[in-house]
Amino acid sequence: MDQRLSLITLGTSDLESARRFYEALGWTTGAKEADDVVFFQAGGMVVALWGRDKLAEDSAVTDGGGWGGVTLAYNTRSPEEVDAVIEEARAAGATIGREAGDTFYGGYSGIFIDPDGHPWEVAHNPRWTVEEDGSVTLPD
Amino acid sequence: MDQRLSLITLGTSDLESARRFYEALGWTTGAKEADDVVFFQAGGMVVALWGRDKLAEDSAVTDGGGWGGVTLAYNTRSPEEVDAVIEEARAAGATIGREAGDTFYGGYSGIFIDPDGHPWEVAHNPRWTVEEDGSVTLPD
Repeated sequence: MDQRLSLITLGTSDLESARRFYEALGWTTGAKEADDVVFFQAGGMVVALWGRDKLAEDSAVTDGGGWGGVTLAYNTRSPEEVDAVIEEARAAGATIGREAGDTFYGGYSGIFIDPDGHPWEVAHNPRWTVEEDGSVTLPD
Repeated sequence: MDQRLSLITLGTSDLESARRFYEALGWTTGAKEADDVVFFQAGGMVVALWGRDKLAEDSAVTDGGGWGGVTLAYNTRSPEEVDAVIEEARAAGATIGREAGDTFYGGYSGIFIDPDGHPWEVAHNPRWTVEEDGSVTLPD
């Protein structure tokens, strides 16, 4: 198994609201209005939105009903960009779980939570490089 | 907010077991044995393992205790490669949630579930391109 990830699917209770939330952040999809799954090309991978009940069944898991131990992160090239993305998320209707501020690892981050309870850390980590194409490289 | 994802963190109840599981799949990390977070470079993004309790607190969420509506996927270049990765995961100690087989969307996939209950679909989707570098591109 190569060291890579192709797709992450976020379960939603209301696909249309979830789609509108990510579109309000500036994301675009080729999905039609009637499609029951919405795919966003996200760099070299894909982020999908799908009904949480269908996703649970397809994933052969029982739904715990809340958060399940997975957090996403979006790394920025500056602390100011963290502030900007948190404000974008707030304007799009996200819950701000943690306002932007300094982190224990010497970075700067905040947390927004999407309409289905999926948390995103928006972070500037001065030791990580965000490349021109948006990819992220760990330090040696 | 650009249309990309930098990092996904998987909460674990036993970091060492989780790390060994992903290492048994062939993944490598520069983390030291004593590190309390394990980072894997995964193409242009990063997959991290961290204590689930710390992750919940840092993410400003309440832990539902089970699966929380997020499923990962690893796309392959052939159906045979799906079979091979499912067997690798089984040998590494994964629970096989769904044995490999034909899917409703015309592909071929199986599900393995990591030691902390995080499901991975291993899928061959004939309409998606897996590039040389492992990145995935949606059809037009």
